[in-house]
Amino acid sequence: MKCSKCDNEASIRIAYSNIILCASHFVEWLEQRIERTVEKYKMLEGTRKLGIAVSGGKDSTTLLHVMKKIADKKGIEIFGINIDLGIDQGKSYSSKSTEIAVKNFEMLNVNYRIVNIAKEYGFTIDEAKENIHRPVCSTCGLSKRYVMNWIALEEGIDTIATGHNVNDNAQFISMGYLTGDVENLSRLRNVAPAENGLVKKIKPLFLTYEKETLTYALIKRIPFIIDSCPNTFRVGGRTQDAVRRNLEEMEDKIPGYMLNLVENFERKIRPALEEKYLKKEEVSKCKICGMPTSKGRDICSFCAIRIKMKKIKSVT
Amino acid sequence: MKCSKCDNEASIRIAYSNIILCASHFVEWLEQRIERTVEKYKMLEGTRKLGIAVSGGKDSTTLLHVMKKIADKKGIEIFGINIDLGIDQGKSYSSKSTEIAVKNFEMLNVNYRIVNIAKEYGFTIDEAKENIHRPVCSTCGLSKRYVMNWIALEEGIDTIATGHNVNDNAQFISMGYLTGDVENLSRLRNVAPAENGLVKKIKPLFLTYEKETLTYALIKRIPFIIDSCPNTFRVGGRTQDAVRRNLEEMEDKIPGYMLNLVENFERKIRPALEEKYLKKEEVSKCKICGMPTSKGRDICSFCAIRIKMKKIKSVT
Repeated sequence: MKCSKCDNEASIRIAYSNIILCASHFVEWLEQRIERTVEKYKMLEGTRKLGIAVSGGKDSTTLLHVMKKIADKKGIEIFGINIDLGIDQGKSYSSKSTEIAVKNFEMLNVNYRIVNIAKEYGFTIDEAKENIHRPVCSTCGLSKRYVMNWIALEEGIDTIATGHNVNDNAQFISMGYLTGDVENLSRLRNVAPAENGLVKKIKPLFLTYEKETLTYALIKRIPFIIDSCPNTFRVGGRTQDAVRRNLEEMEDKIPGYMLNLVENFERKIRPALEEKYLKKEEVSKCKICGMPTSKGRDICSFCAIRIKMKKIKSVT
Repeated sequence: MKCSKCDNEASIRIAYSNIILCASHFVEWLEQRIERTVEKYKMLEGTRKLGIAVSGGKDSTTLLHVMKKIADKKGIEIFGINIDLGIDQGKSYSSKSTEIAVKNFEMLNVNYRIVNIAKEYGFTIDEAKENIHRPVCSTCGLSKRYVMNWIALEEGIDTIATGHNVNDNAQFISMGYLTGDVENLSRLRNVAPAENGLVKKIKPLFLTYEKETLTYALIKRIPFIIDSCPNTFRVGGRTQDAVRRNLEEMEDKIPGYMLNLVENFERKIRPALEEKYLKKEEVSKCKICGMPTSKGRDICSFCAIRIKMKKIKSVT
């Protein structure tokens, strides 16, 4: 099969666009597609220094490489961020993640910062998992958001990009439709403006398929970590797994299924949910770290975890 | 396997409630379940005369039998309605539908009215399908809504119940999520209050599965027509078919899937869509029939079709 754009052998079929592309035309096509998403949703409006959160997986490394190109054209500075979360579980997940992230930052010659949460805050996610009565993915997500925001303030970053893809979004949206969790659905923004002391956050890959970031990373020989986080497999649950597999099956039957689900959510459904359910939270300042926390609370959730872990570790 | 409630042999498994029931306990269970839905969503609040739209299928005949019981307890009068749409296509679909509906009305000794649209309005849906440039299901739906409303006014009916089940709802909602048709989603009400000269409409089976109405009809030996409308198979389209089959597969994997999707839509998502998208239409009176039509239009869509068909038939 020949590429739809040249005489080379095709290497990927984009069923929802009804094209097949060779390696180099695919790279060009995906970069343009992501750039169009960035433009259409005004993701870089007002951005001067863009932080890219890189876990080292196919999505975040592809994000780094593509956003570097887009930012260069616009004269926006790129800054790499990796958090060493201390997830080991016999698989050295976090240390591999950091190693790969650094490799990519140096390949592209971007400034970066690694935050080792054990060194910086005195505990690891593995330790929190054992000791904090809270689902580990929730503790981890909370910690990542906290650290991101804190680095942004420290480094003068005004926008942070994360690598959530269309598969992630479609799963989250489908689960929300099923469970009726409209509060979380209304917060699922692909462009979340700076507010309440939190930095602006964007998801440039929210319309890009997992298969596409994987193909891009492979073609461009981008170093990436293949392993998933060892916690992922334990927390998904039967319903979430079934929903994710189902989305892939529907995508095979109806090309563009996830894309339509996610884009129509973004354009039509979420705005209605946002108006009705998104709470405009008033915030207080955490008395320990000064970062924003919910109105009426003395200390933020991250400091609460940090203090709890400190106590537990001082006893043992 | 024994019934969860007695020593009889079970005949149906209700996976989402984790019970198995014998024939008579299933009948009792389903009637109570529908009654609870009617109460919870205040479907009969203010109702004195309830019209039941009966096509003769398993859903509408089950609806008639169950609502008769519920209405009797409340002292509400039941009135049966069947529309002979003139859909034949070598299968006598409409005449069979009317025959079965009448059989049920007479079994239950309820007053009823059959409207033959050929006699009353001078055309059949089969003729409209050939001559009107509009999808046949749209013409048919429009005609049914018109006739229902007109009978309601004539007969002093204040509420009309239709037999839409949870499978129908889940399909419609899933298609709406996929295509982003928020205008239609915001109109998908299970209790639509009387407004703009239109009678109140309710869907007491909106949380009842197809499998449940079928089982009820079979156990109670309710006469019903097994054939689907001959138009259904031609208009569904590949996407709609895949979505419907997919919902059934997901239901097998995750019992209660459709129920959760539909109930959470009703309780959480639709209210937000309604606030943002449901147009409070101003209406005019149709200059021909006096029934409500969109503000600024002289004649209603039904009269427009009727006049067009009259012209076409006078020429041929």
